[in-house]
Amino acid sequence: MIDKLASLLAEVARGSVSVEQAVERLRHLPFEDVGFAQIDHHRVLRRGRSEIIFASHKTVEQVTTIAARLADATGGFLATRVTPEHAAALTERFPGAHWNPLARTVALEAERPAGGLEGRVAVVSAGTSDLPVAEEAVAVLHWAGAEVASVADVGVAGLHRLLAARERLDGADVLIVVAGMEGALPSVVAGLAHQPVIAVPTSVGYGASFGGLAALLAMLNSCADGVTVVNIDNGFGAAMAALRILDRRPGRP
Amino acid sequence: MIDKLASLLAEVARGSVSVEQAVERLRHLPFEDVGFAQIDHHRVLRRGRSEIIFASHKTVEQVTTIAARLADATGGFLATRVTPEHAAALTERFPGAHWNPLARTVALEAERPAGGLEGRVAVVSAGTSDLPVAEEAVAVLHWAGAEVASVADVGVAGLHRLLAARERLDGADVLIVVAGMEGALPSVVAGLAHQPVIAVPTSVGYGASFGGLAALLAMLNSCADGVTVVNIDNGFGAAMAALRILDRRPGRP
Amino acid sequence: MIDKLASLLAEVARGSVSVEQAVERLRHLPFEDVGFAQIDHHRVLRRGRSEIIFASHKTVEQVTTIAARLADATGGFLATRVTPEHAAALTERFPGAHWNPLARTVALEAERPAGGLEGRVAVVSAGTSDLPVAEEAVAVLHWAGAEVASVADVGVAGLHRLLAARERLDGADVLIVVAGMEGALPSVVAGLAHQPVIAVPTSVGYGASFGGLAALLAMLNSCADGVTVVNIDNGFGAAMAALRILDRRPGRP
Amino acid sequence: MIDKLASLLAEVARGSVSVEQAVERLRHLPFEDVGFAQIDHHRVLRRGRSEIIFASHKTVEQVTTIAARLADATGGFLATRVTPEHAAALTERFPGAHWNPLARTVALEAERPAGGLEGRVAVVSAGTSDLPVAEEAVAVLHWAGAEVASVADVGVAGLHRLLAARERLDGADVLIVVAGMEGALPSVVAGLAHQPVIAVPTSVGYGASFGGLAALLAMLNSCADGVTVVNIDNGFGAAMAALRILDRRPGRP
Amino acid sequence: MIDKLASLLAEVARGSVSVEQAVERLRHLPFEDVGFAQIDHHRVLRRGRSEIIFASHKTVEQVTTIAARLADATGGFLATRVTPEHAAALTERFPGAHWNPLARTVALEAERPAGGLEGRVAVVSAGTSDLPVAEEAVAVLHWAGAEVASVADVGVAGLHRLLAARERLDGADVLIVVAGMEGALPSVVAGLAHQPVIAVPTSVGYGASFGGLAALLAMLNSCADGVTVVNIDNGFGAAMAALRILDRRPGRP
Amino acid sequence: MIDKLASLLAEVARGSVSVEQAVERLRHLPFEDVGFAQIDHHRVLRRGRSEIIFASHKTVEQVTTIAARLADATGGFLATRVTPEHAAALTERFPGAHWNPLARTVALEAERPAGGLEGRVAVVSAGTSDLPVAEEAVAVLHWAGAEVASVADVGVAGLHRLLAARERLDGADVLIVVAGMEGALPSVVAGLAHQPVIAVPTSVGYGASFGGLAALLAMLNSCADGVTVVNIDNGFGAAMAALRILDRRPGRP
Amino acid sequence: MIDKLASLLAEVARGSVSVEQAVERLRHLPFEDVGFAQIDHHRVLRRGRSEIIFASHKTVEQVTTIAARLADATGGFLATRVTPEHAAALTERFPGAHWNPLARTVALEAERPAGGLEGRVAVVSAGTSDLPVAEEAVAVLHWAGAEVASVADVGVAGLHRLLAARERLDGADVLIVVAGMEGALPSVVAGLAHQPVIAVPTSVGYGASFGGLAALLAMLNSCADGVTVVNIDNGFGAAMAALRILDRRPGRP
Amino acid sequence: MIDKLASLLAEVARGSVSVEQAVERLRHLPFEDVGFAQIDHHRVLRRGRSEIIFASHKTVEQVTTIAARLADATGGFLATRVTPEHAAALTERFPGAHWNPLARTVALEAERPAGGLEGRVAVVSAGTSDLPVAEEAVAVLHWAGAEVASVADVGVAGLHRLLAARERLDGADVLIVVAGMEGALPSVVAGLAHQPVIAVPTSVGYGASFGGLAALLAMLNSCADGVTVVNIDNGFGAAMAALRILDRRPGRP
Repeated sequence: MIDKLASLLAEVARGSVSVEQAVERLRHLPFEDVGFAQIDHHRVLRRGRSEIIFASHKTVEQVTTIAARLADATGGFLATRVTPEHAAALTERFPGAHWNPLARTVALEAERPAGGLEGRVAVVSAGTSDLPVAEEAVAVLHWAGAEVASVADVGVAGLHRLLAARERLDGADVLIVVAGMEGALPSVVAGLAHQPVIAVPTSVGYGASFGGLAALLAMLNSCADGVTVVNIDNGFGAAMAALRILDRRPGRP
Repeated sequence: MIDKLASLLAEVARGSVSVEQAVERLRHLPFEDVGFAQIDHHRVLRRGRSEIIFASHKTVEQVTTIAARLADATGGFLATRVTPEHAAALTERFPGAHWNPLARTVALEAERPAGGLEGRVAVVSAGTSDLPVAEEAVAVLHWAGAEVASVADVGVAGLHRLLAARERLDGADVLIVVAGMEGALPSVVAGLAHQPVIAVPTSVGYGASFGGLAALLAMLNSCADGVTVVNIDNGFGAAMAALRILDRRPGRP
Repeated sequence: MIDKLASLLAEVARGSVSVEQAVERLRHLPFEDVGFAQIDHHRVLRRGRSEIIFASHKTVEQVTTIAARLADATGGFLATRVTPEHAAALTERFPGAHWNPLARTVALEAERPAGGLEGRVAVVSAGTSDLPVAEEAVAVLHWAGAEVASVADVGVAGLHRLLAARERLDGADVLIVVAGMEGALPSVVAGLAHQPVIAVPTSVGYGASFGGLAALLAMLNSCADGVTVVNIDNGFGAAMAALRILDRRPGRP
Repeated sequence: MIDKLASLLAEVARGSVSVEQAVERLRHLPFEDVGFAQIDHHRVLRRGRSEIIFASHKTVEQVTTIAARLADATGGFLATRVTPEHAAALTERFPGAHWNPLARTVALEAERPAGGLEGRVAVVSAGTSDLPVAEEAVAVLHWAGAEVASVADVGVAGLHRLLAARERLDGADVLIVVAGMEGALPSVVAGLAHQPVIAVPTSVGYGASFGGLAALLAMLNSCADGVTVVNIDNGFGAAMAALRILDRRPGRP
Repeated sequence: MIDKLASLLAEVARGSVSVEQAVERLRHLPFEDVGFAQIDHHRVLRRGRSEIIFASHKTVEQVTTIAARLADATGGFLATRVTPEHAAALTERFPGAHWNPLARTVALEAERPAGGLEGRVAVVSAGTSDLPVAEEAVAVLHWAGAEVASVADVGVAGLHRLLAARERLDGADVLIVVAGMEGALPSVVAGLAHQPVIAVPTSVGYGASFGGLAALLAMLNSCADGVTVVNIDNGFGAAMAALRILDRRPGRP
Repeated sequence: MIDKLASLLAEVARGSVSVEQAVERLRHLPFEDVGFAQIDHHRVLRRGRSEIIFASHKTVEQVTTIAARLADATGGFLATRVTPEHAAALTERFPGAHWNPLARTVALEAERPAGGLEGRVAVVSAGTSDLPVAEEAVAVLHWAGAEVASVADVGVAGLHRLLAARERLDGADVLIVVAGMEGALPSVVAGLAHQPVIAVPTSVGYGASFGGLAALLAMLNSCADGVTVVNIDNGFGAAMAALRILDRRPGRP
Repeated sequence: MIDKLASLLAEVARGSVSVEQAVERLRHLPFEDVGFAQIDHHRVLRRGRSEIIFASHKTVEQVTTIAARLADATGGFLATRVTPEHAAALTERFPGAHWNPLARTVALEAERPAGGLEGRVAVVSAGTSDLPVAEEAVAVLHWAGAEVASVADVGVAGLHRLLAARERLDGADVLIVVAGMEGALPSVVAGLAHQPVIAVPTSVGYGASFGGLAALLAMLNSCADGVTVVNIDNGFGAAMAALRILDRRPGRP
Repeated sequence: MIDKLASLLAEVARGSVSVEQAVERLRHLPFEDVGFAQIDHHRVLRRGRSEIIFASHKTVEQVTTIAARLADATGGFLATRVTPEHAAALTERFPGAHWNPLARTVALEAERPAGGLEGRVAVVSAGTSDLPVAEEAVAVLHWAGAEVASVADVGVAGLHRLLAARERLDGADVLIVVAGMEGALPSVVAGLAHQPVIAVPTSVGYGASFGGLAALLAMLNSCADGVTVVNIDNGFGAAMAALRILDRRPGRP
């Protein structure tokens, strides 16, 4: 694309193509290629965390192939929603990779460039059954270079546990709050805190929890202002949203 | 019915009907009438609160007629879900009746027999928009002779307000907890309290509250054990359930 | 916490800290710890049933570990929603423990303190397929020391069976009514009885029962006043709600 | 159509069209016209109830025009779901027509041919708010010449009322059972009766009744075998289904 | 019950119990037992098809035990929703029993009393995937002694197939119409026929069929009057409803 | 945009900007403006139907202003979902405009260029209540220059009416099939026809039609292959989809 | 049927049946048989793609039998939704058949008659997980003789990929757009293109995607006019709809 | 509370209360009051935007009273979801207040303290019907002192409009993206941008949009990572979430 542009402009410069002809040709150049190049450039700049492998519904071969390509390019990779089969293949091929069975992740950590991400995220979860989702968020955040504080088992039916953990909440830049069942924890946390609160409903529950729908609706209807919500069980998405917030720095495009 | 039974038995006693014939006739007596009489008898004993008029979808004439019949029989009545039109007609006809526009009730209080109901109910509500539902419960409880403590505007986004009201909660025999939006309050209250907790979801909210569905599902999925739930906006039902609990006394059938 | 308080107050007493300084320090003491201690104290007092293990989604090791800790502290434990694997491990480790495969519970009974719970609960169920949920409620109630009357297979399509069991209902302090399919039984029972009625919808059914939704909605819309509802298949929750009612005694905080 | 057939056959008769040509032409005659004629003929035979005007979403003019056409052809008509405006126009134009505001019907009764419908339908309803739907069924049945027994206000929370009405149920050929809220009545009735039971859920209720969905699902999941269900508030449809049952007679096509 | 009644009346006859005392005692006799006896009597009279075993969610032992009890009492049995394991056990124990794997039924046919059921039912189904549900209905009807005409694979996308089967429809007393996917067949059939139409939605479909919900809603909203509907996949229920219609005979209580 | 391009290229031509600099600047030119121009150009070519005013939720002033702008540019306009207020204002301002109250449209027809659209669309509707949606489609098609055949009141409960209209269906290039209630008509039509079938569910119905959901689900689950579906009541969208099909011509981009 | 017609007409020709009698008899001939023959005839004419085997829920034997019948009649077949077991049996029996495991199809291609289908379809899909659905559409289109362009992995979160593929879209007659998750791709594609757009939601996603419901609703609500939608995962249906569009040719009935 | 603490400590200081007694008393001081004071203090510090009046479901008197209290305390107020009646009363009483009828807000702006909020938020909306929700967000952000860039009418069906606005997006710290119908805009925006994206579904649409459910589900299932979602039509909540992000500054508690 750049080559095509350059040769056209060279023709203009040497007069073999008139301005009018060049305008016409440029008007019909596929702009999408320009866009593609621009975006690709951005991707290179932000690399290091931009490509995370969502292993669910992918074969062992597909996941291993993508991981190898990423390891070559960036020195590391992170795969989420891995099955034990995925994990076995990845850790065999990449001896330095670490499998976290609770979070369902495999990570091979690249060396990180200096001057990276600054900020801390507290990942707060209501019950022990919510831990896989919380740990997925933790794994993504850790892999991206964020500092993480994990606060588990602070469901609203035992407020004292949450109140006792308040100091750890106060020290964070962003709060990710993970809860299933009635999904009340984000409302209580957001009432206590001034930071951004990203709520993650989980499918933990039974009967009228309808696979996490109860928690999702509760979080969307939070009486505490400023709570935002991601999809059910989407620890990955909550972490990515937190990273978008941490990325924000003066002077950054 | 009793008369029919007595005359049949008198015939048996004087021999004009044989035992076998009487067995046959009794076998075919409509048992349901016996049942009806029994239940009616129970109703008389428990009178004073047994007949509450649900005015919704009833005409002014229907409501006034039923109220008059109840006032004649028991000296008083309670009508719930009254419109202003219902209220105007009732207070005109029964000058002693009191209209509570927030609770949407009209009450004419009968003298209460001694030895009545003992116990106190705390009616806890999350936001000011939940008050009509909470007040309906209060009105029913008051009319039935229960002591009521009203604790309003203690939503979970401001925990300190709820914690400040804890003493009033501790003094109650039953807790009715009313909340719309994310419906988290019953979980928090039940975590703090040991009493029966009756949760009332309200239709307060918009968008993904789906007319109270979000709060209802949250309450059904409470992580605090022992929370029970009534229909959306059903302050009346919560009060009736509380009365069933207060009614329980040693030696009472 | 208590130690910190005491040493601060000792400093006040000996004049090394002024009243103003002490006020300031106390104002910033984490109140949640106080709350924690209070609640913990309550838990000790009520011990004996406060810790019930919800085995679902827990590993065999997790369940066994928690059970061992509870057995050490209180002499017994109750685990609900156990799989056969859970049950095998628990009964091997605790030879005195009893597995109820229908109720999906394993119980090791502690000696109970004198002066315990008083009251009887009738657990009424509509069909034989509802028995696992009913039996879970029975197991929790029994383990907590309540007297239980079990009334099974009294669905509304054969009223005579329910009517024949009426005496057992009349003798109870609380009624737990378990039904799947159309969920009509609580309405009929509440129409016959004056006690608190806790309705438990079950997921028994197919097609348009939508996993118990039909029964749940029916129970929430009961035309009999004072019916309260718990989550689908939540026999445990119904029992805990019944225990909150039985706990109510004059002079009890 | 008949004319076309006749002229073709006349050509065959006089030899101007061969048998083979006629077969071919007949094969391509639009069969639907034949079908139309046949069905129309059936309609004439069954007339007297076949054309009922569903006034909802129709203008006053449309309803009046259709009514006039029917009155000319058959001597009478029945309109359902009429508004007061519909009713005023119809009763003004047809002085013999009768408006039933509860059932929302206007009927002008034709003289009925001898040898009509035989059989009785009991229309059983749970609460007074269900009466408009029940009365719509009654109006359709009455207009079609069926004998109707109306049994109102026999909700399942007061079984004695239903049991007291049992004789009237036993005398019917078909039972239409109308209920809103938890929709339990058809199950109880079908458990007591051996006749066909047509259940009609109504939109009576609020909150989690979701406009009659709760009652509809309950009826579809009835534990009593042989209950069939029509749409919410569809008293008309229930009556039409009952008429299909009553129509069944030996020797009838 | 009868004995207790007789001895009480004998005491009245010989004067050892006064009329007043007898009235009082009779008033408190459990009427439900009378009801029970009556209903039981009805059951005996109608025996032969009243007890059908719903094998789903029952163990092989439970199903075999119930089948044995029924075979002893009536000479036969019908079990629906049997698994291959159920079927193996039943056919081994009852060599005369017949397993229909498509209908998922096992039947042991009793000799039928003379003067039994009269009438024919057409079971019409839309696609071959709907056949298990249709065959379940056929099996129940056949077992109960009804004549059955099976009309399969007449979906509405190929009207000619349905129209070709019209004669078989015309000869039936009741039409059971089974369809999944868009559930349109009952509307078309009811438009062609004058008999009672019982619609059975099936869970055949995928995606937005939502397990049969699409077909269920379509059937409830049929534009053809007089269609009634049973639960999704409920071939058994449709057959039972058809039997209620066939049972209707002059002079039958 | 074109101007900016031209001046940049002129600078390249006269050497004041180097090729490398020009490449860099062009790389960062907002490509979207190029895209905008292209698409705008397409719009001009296809004009005559590209801008249709969706009046719903727009004020009378907004609709009138947009209509005036379109009338200036193209000589005509079409507005859908107009209220009577919209219609009054539009017909007053544009005396040549025509209000179709059934279709809820106002159209001012421009002269059409020669060589326009070729093809005929049959708009088939099930009941008279579906006519507003069908007529909206007709109005859009007519305004765009398509030939339209309207076939109304051919619901599936009276197949003969549909079969009688078959010739008009056969003559069409595209079939739009509009139905509420059970939404069965598209399946039947698609079984009879070989053309593209665009199904439009309507909100006609009540109770379990859930505002057109029943018809929508039925159409999505059609057993006739090749049926596509648009949103509930979306006659406009169906017409636009038909126009996309009619637009397809050899040699057309 | 033809025979019966011929003999009747022969009687008319020889005068043994009058014209009037013949009209009457013909009027009652079962028109459905005529219809059946006509439609069958159409099927023969369009053969080659009319019979596609939907293998889901069919046994290996059923699928093989139908395939054999089709291969005999037409020289080929296409089976969709095949399991590996189906595929093994089909490829063993028909060595020329080709199994596409991604598309879940087995095809045996018949020689195609000259003068067949003209036109190209672009099948556009959002993510790699959507490929099975897209490939099913491709397989059906290819088997029917259409030219297909496959454009994969062009989800809306990376617009540049879609814009880069624009040329391939422009060259197509019909666009099939396949997407799961938020289902946004058809809106974007339809905004860029003037051709018919058939949207296929897939069940790809988790949590609040509710099995493809999110994508389905998004597509039905597309802000781009003229998008039509098929059932979730229905690649087959989308292809059949595209074929109906391609079939459209001047002079074709 | 402070007073009580001080007098207790004074008693400790003068020896009239022992350390042990003081510990005990402090342990039972209502900790919630301490919490209340702390939180209240936070509120004072953050004042200026902390109290926003949600006027919906409040009377004119209630809104005016709260506004007056806020104006006294802080010099200004913001009320959202005001009706014209609210607006008339507020602007009459507070002549400096500004009513924005599109955003449904009334604002009286206080002087802002120096050193306030830094940062810019872009509020992007899909269609003109989404403007009220977008403008509500704008009003809240403006009132809180944030810089706002409004980008309207950039729906995904016309990508060029969005791409043309890209510069304004790039300059923002947070992106609020508002869309109804298929809710696709946040996915496209998040694919183009690196900032936090807060998605707001609106109830704009009809039929299968189900009051904004379609857009809500689409946004929750966004294929672009890091999108978070608030309730339907909740422009206020989106703005509050954005403010939580902007508030984040080094050194801020």
